[in-house]
Amino acid sequence: MNAFFNPKGIALVGASANPAKGGYAILKNLMIGFKGGIYPVNPRYGEIEGIPCYSSVPDVPDPVDLAIIFVPGKKVLPVVRDCAERGIRAVMIESGGFAESGFEGKAMQKEMDRIAGEKGIRIWGPNCMGLVDAVNRRIFSFVSPAIWEHLIPGNVSLIVQSGMLSGAFLIDRMSHGFMGISKVCSVGNKADVDECELLDYLIRDPETHAVGLYLETISDGRNFMEICRNSSKPLVLLKGGKSPGGAAAAMSHTASMAGDSAVISGALAQVGVTEADDFDHLTDLCRTLASYSYVESSPKGRVAVLTYSGGAGIVSADFLHGKGLEPACLSPAALASLKEIYPDWMQPSNPVDLWPAVEKSGAAKAYDTAFRAICADPGVDALFLHVFAGGFNLNIDLSEAQKLAGAAGKPVFCWLMGDSGEAKAFQMKTQALGIPVYREIRRAVECIHAVFERKRFMGSGAPREIICDSFRVSERANELLAGEKGVLDEYLSKIILSGCSIPTVTERIISDGEDGIRALSEIGGPLVMKGLIPGQIHKSESELIRMWLISEAAIKEHHKDIRSKIGDTGKVLVQKQIKSGVELIAGLIRDPQFGPCVMFGLGGILAEVMKDRVFASAPLTHDEALDLIGRLRTRQMLDGFRGSVPLDRNEMACILVNLGRLGLAFPQIREIDINPLIISEGKPVAVDATVILEPQF
Amino acid sequence: MNAFFNPKGIALVGASANPAKGGYAILKNLMIGFKGGIYPVNPRYGEIEGIPCYSSVPDVPDPVDLAIIFVPGKKVLPVVRDCAERGIRAVMIESGGFAESGFEGKAMQKEMDRIAGEKGIRIWGPNCMGLVDAVNRRIFSFVSPAIWEHLIPGNVSLIVQSGMLSGAFLIDRMSHGFMGISKVCSVGNKADVDECELLDYLIRDPETHAVGLYLETISDGRNFMEICRNSSKPLVLLKGGKSPGGAAAAMSHTASMAGDSAVISGALAQVGVTEADDFDHLTDLCRTLASYSYVESSPKGRVAVLTYSGGAGIVSADFLHGKGLEPACLSPAALASLKEIYPDWMQPSNPVDLWPAVEKSGAAKAYDTAFRAICADPGVDALFLHVFAGGFNLNIDLSEAQKLAGAAGKPVFCWLMGDSGEAKAFQMKTQALGIPVYREIRRAVECIHAVFERKRFMGSGAPREIICDSFRVSERANELLAGEKGVLDEYLSKIILSGCSIPTVTERIISDGEDGIRALSEIGGPLVMKGLIPGQIHKSESELIRMWLISEAAIKEHHKDIRSKIGDTGKVLVQKQIKSGVELIAGLIRDPQFGPCVMFGLGGILAEVMKDRVFASAPLTHDEALDLIGRLRTRQMLDGFRGSVPLDRNEMACILVNLGRLGLAFPQIREIDINPLIISEGKPVAVDATVILEPQF
Repeated sequence: MNAFFNPKGIALVGASANPAKGGYAILKNLMIGFKGGIYPVNPRYGEIEGIPCYSSVPDVPDPVDLAIIFVPGKKVLPVVRDCAERGIRAVMIESGGFAESGFEGKAMQKEMDRIAGEKGIRIWGPNCMGLVDAVNRRIFSFVSPAIWEHLIPGNVSLIVQSGMLSGAFLIDRMSHGFMGISKVCSVGNKADVDECELLDYLIRDPETHAVGLYLETISDGRNFMEICRNSSKPLVLLKGGKSPGGAAAAMSHTASMAGDSAVISGALAQVGVTEADDFDHLTDLCRTLASYSYVESSPKGRVAVLTYSGGAGIVSADFLHGKGLEPACLSPAALASLKEIYPDWMQPSNPVDLWPAVEKSGAAKAYDTAFRAICADPGVDALFLHVFAGGFNLNIDLSEAQKLAGAAGKPVFCWLMGDSGEAKAFQMKTQALGIPVYREIRRAVECIHAVFERKRFMGSGAPREIICDSFRVSERANELLAGEKGVLDEYLSKIILSGCSIPTVTERIISDGEDGIRALSEIGGPLVMKGLIPGQIHKSESELIRMWLISEAAIKEHHKDIRSKIGDTGKVLVQKQIKSGVELIAGLIRDPQFGPCVMFGLGGILAEVMKDRVFASAPLTHDEALDLIGRLRTRQMLDGFRGSVPLDRNEMACILVNLGRLGLAFPQIREIDINPLIISEGKPVAVDATVILEPQF
Repeated sequence: MNAFFNPKGIALVGASANPAKGGYAILKNLMIGFKGGIYPVNPRYGEIEGIPCYSSVPDVPDPVDLAIIFVPGKKVLPVVRDCAERGIRAVMIESGGFAESGFEGKAMQKEMDRIAGEKGIRIWGPNCMGLVDAVNRRIFSFVSPAIWEHLIPGNVSLIVQSGMLSGAFLIDRMSHGFMGISKVCSVGNKADVDECELLDYLIRDPETHAVGLYLETISDGRNFMEICRNSSKPLVLLKGGKSPGGAAAAMSHTASMAGDSAVISGALAQVGVTEADDFDHLTDLCRTLASYSYVESSPKGRVAVLTYSGGAGIVSADFLHGKGLEPACLSPAALASLKEIYPDWMQPSNPVDLWPAVEKSGAAKAYDTAFRAICADPGVDALFLHVFAGGFNLNIDLSEAQKLAGAAGKPVFCWLMGDSGEAKAFQMKTQALGIPVYREIRRAVECIHAVFERKRFMGSGAPREIICDSFRVSERANELLAGEKGVLDEYLSKIILSGCSIPTVTERIISDGEDGIRALSEIGGPLVMKGLIPGQIHKSESELIRMWLISEAAIKEHHKDIRSKIGDTGKVLVQKQIKSGVELIAGLIRDPQFGPCVMFGLGGILAEVMKDRVFASAPLTHDEALDLIGRLRTRQMLDGFRGSVPLDRNEMACILVNLGRLGLAFPQIREIDINPLIISEGKPVAVDATVILEPQF
């Protein structure tokens, strides 16, 4: 990869002397800051902008280790071959007309990929905007040269799949000057070099402190996860193509399939990647996490808000609450300090409304006293300052503030209102200090939340004890997995699950009413009786479930009734009736990008509508399984809802770990659904389950 | 109110010659644009800034119809009395130190209110920043004079409860120049003049096209709703104090209680008010709805996206999907026009990625052709343009575009990226054309959604047929409501409900096992048997519910068992077992601000955790009840989920209407809970219910 990022000499194939052409723009961009050799290639010119131009790649003198190609799509392949012949092993193709443009283009891209493999060269692109390195002023892109004057070097690097967007996005960010850039990589069609390689490079790049990614596809989900998992730097991802509409657009745009957003979100959460949902959100998260990739304060994320407006304090508290970040409860010492700057009639509390203190004690004293008081409070983990630029004096000596906060290990965040000119000046100054500033309270709180989510994730880095037993599969389960095909009924499915240490309800098949009566005395009432019909998954709608059977008469009566409804191939199952409790769902799916993924969620009739289901890619560590459980939006249900016994989360985590192991060990398993998995006296028990095996394997 | 907005002469009590004081700022602000008489009052000065100063209010010559008071809190009351004596009937008090500042201040505010009532004068404030009228350049506020130079007159008026915020907020907005302002009213403590009166005035103000409100309390919810309901202008509200933390801040800030956010959201939705969640969100919604208070296109809100970036198109489609606004499906004619500007290899679709067309046909032709094609497409209701300012030519003649779109009755929205200077120029230009521009896709889509939500709301303006029967209450229900107190058991509760035409399950109390067997033959099996214990609401946890009773033996057995668990005061109820279906919850609560409110939501064990409950203030029209049902997030459950019969929404609406009528007719009803209300073959049936009456009435 080094030849792409630090080339000694560059052959620019498709260089042009016409200022309206991209081939001219690339040349001018190279001339801005690239210190190595620049070799334009175009048979139509002898020189361009005073630089000698060569008629073909073989003519280019040494040193040259990177070729940038910008000729029409159909002329690209011969040039790639030329490069290979010439010994240039890094090729960046910015031309379009490949996999994104239909059948013919796809075939060309495939051929290109083949040549790359055969000749041992690396290809970046095609259909991309190349690379921009703001720190070293290397601009390998056809985006108009006029825009680079604003380029602010910094420590955030970006990987962007969409071509056009990388240019537009950069200009927008740069001209606002709110985020310093290290490297921007536009990956395009990913014929060869993909986001994984680039990410791996950037994570090891000392000039990069955080990486933001805009991706429409993730080529190799499991490899991507592995790279993210081992990153010590914050990573932020915006995934395009989530909704059905969005996915359709993704297909036509980069000829790629979008994965299931719940699976992707789960995989990202599992490896500590922060997810963004908009372009601004992406850059705001990147610049925040680049400033605060590690914070010393407690992961509780208790925020103190200093505001000049009670109203803005209220709105901040609302957003903090919505994100699960409660305002800090101030210590008596902090409250006493605040009392000194407050008028008599006002009791200080958090959010700290400074306006009355400003009126009584002056802005400088009020801000300074309040900031120091809160910075020293051990119950405060982060400082959220509301500042106003211009017109009033609602401000603070930020370099002093940053020093104080830094010494206390507490991150500072600013919400800024103000006159636009003064606001911009303020923002530039705070950026230089490493304090992130936001123009919206909502966005500020989203970023504070991301910092503490990362803190929590990093905190769980040390391996905790794994409580699950080692993975054993019973003989009977092995037999079933080897011998059966397609949809297994709940009885067989639960034999497999219990054979892998997943707790299931006590149950057996009964041959007739008399056998049912024997089962009643063996298992003990009340019993549930179910009619099983081969291939039928949902029983509750078809009245094949009877509950509360406690008498011999009832057993006989219901057996007769169910028997009459299920035909000759049906079986009648009786099981111990589990005391009613919260119903969960757990399972396993196979994702084309992320492989076997474990699912956990709310069960029962609402499961499909609420969509409160979380995913993680197998294998899961015990800790990852615990984190997965904690990601459920309705997790309140698990913690002793309405006086019930709380879920044994360790037990639940073992089930999830084992589901993942099952998926990895037996590729013939297409899908597992445990629904419901009932919390009974705190223990999860699989009450109904379906294992679906590949029809042919 | 006219004396506040259009005074002939103003007495400024507390005028000062010291530029550091608010009493000086108000005077300078008055001098900026107020054309009537200005009369400073302060015994310490003979004149200020060349204007004669009076020593007391009685000395002020005519014409004077408004007094602005800015003296320390404790000196305010005598001045108010002076004003009353002097015949000044409109008093604006900008001083603080009243109800927001503890016991003594509260007493002063109460006395002020008493004087106002007695003397027939109107008081605005105290603890406020007064009034700014940007169109007529009347600035009745102590906010620093320097800031008003940016004031852009426009058609959006604001009512802001928080004092400090109104000033800061205004400066921020003004200096960015994105929203033209008509009037800003800072209401403060609302001792007399409140948001209702101001809103009523602004709705009738021809210079105001939309009103934005930031409120921490709503003084009289039912009056506020009435005013909103009758407004032809778009209204947007940001309610501070939603979360527990936020509410605590609200209490200390303006000495007021925050209402339940679900109740407020319900009431706002009922009368067509758009809810904002942040200050920027508030202004973005206001400027959008002021531009598009009415759109001609279909309320379906099918959006066509024109973009220069496939990636941004994907993100837009994702957000549209998330808001329930699907991208439009383009007509063959539109696709044919697009095909002409596209390269051969690319199939046009929506989102319309224009970059390949720009490369082939040039930006001007590509944008113009695409815009015309989509504007003419009858399946497109709104146009979402992605534009780029500076660097490329990714733009369009917007005044021409606005004309075309206007003729087609379709609103245009812009998402803007670009160089910051050029972006601002672009934004000013589009604002003058009435096209709203956004810097974030998420925000743009939120605003597009708000325009079509309003369209839907306005579309339901014509009264539809009311299907519910007239409200009759049975004799037995009347007796129970008159005679009982406290928590009624489910049997009595359902007698009341069925007595008001709310369908309930067939059931009766049984005296013993034999009576139970008689009930089985009367009602027909399977039966449910329940043990009722006086005062106990939740039965499911205590095993007092038995289902699937179909035999005489089972009836006897379970009766005996339940009887043994409920004590002498308990009753045994048997009811027809309803075929299992979706469980809902419906009910009635009394809100201190909005009176009796009907609740509708998801029932069963998840109800409390999911919090998917919607509210509406009674009385409800049948249409409002239908809208209420449609606001449920999980409404998909109602429409034939998993092959079940869809809910009869008219029947459900009648139940909700009748619950509201019950609450209005019987003030002794404190609360009603119907839980569950089961959808059985499409019909809602109350299976369990609790009516709670006032313990003393």
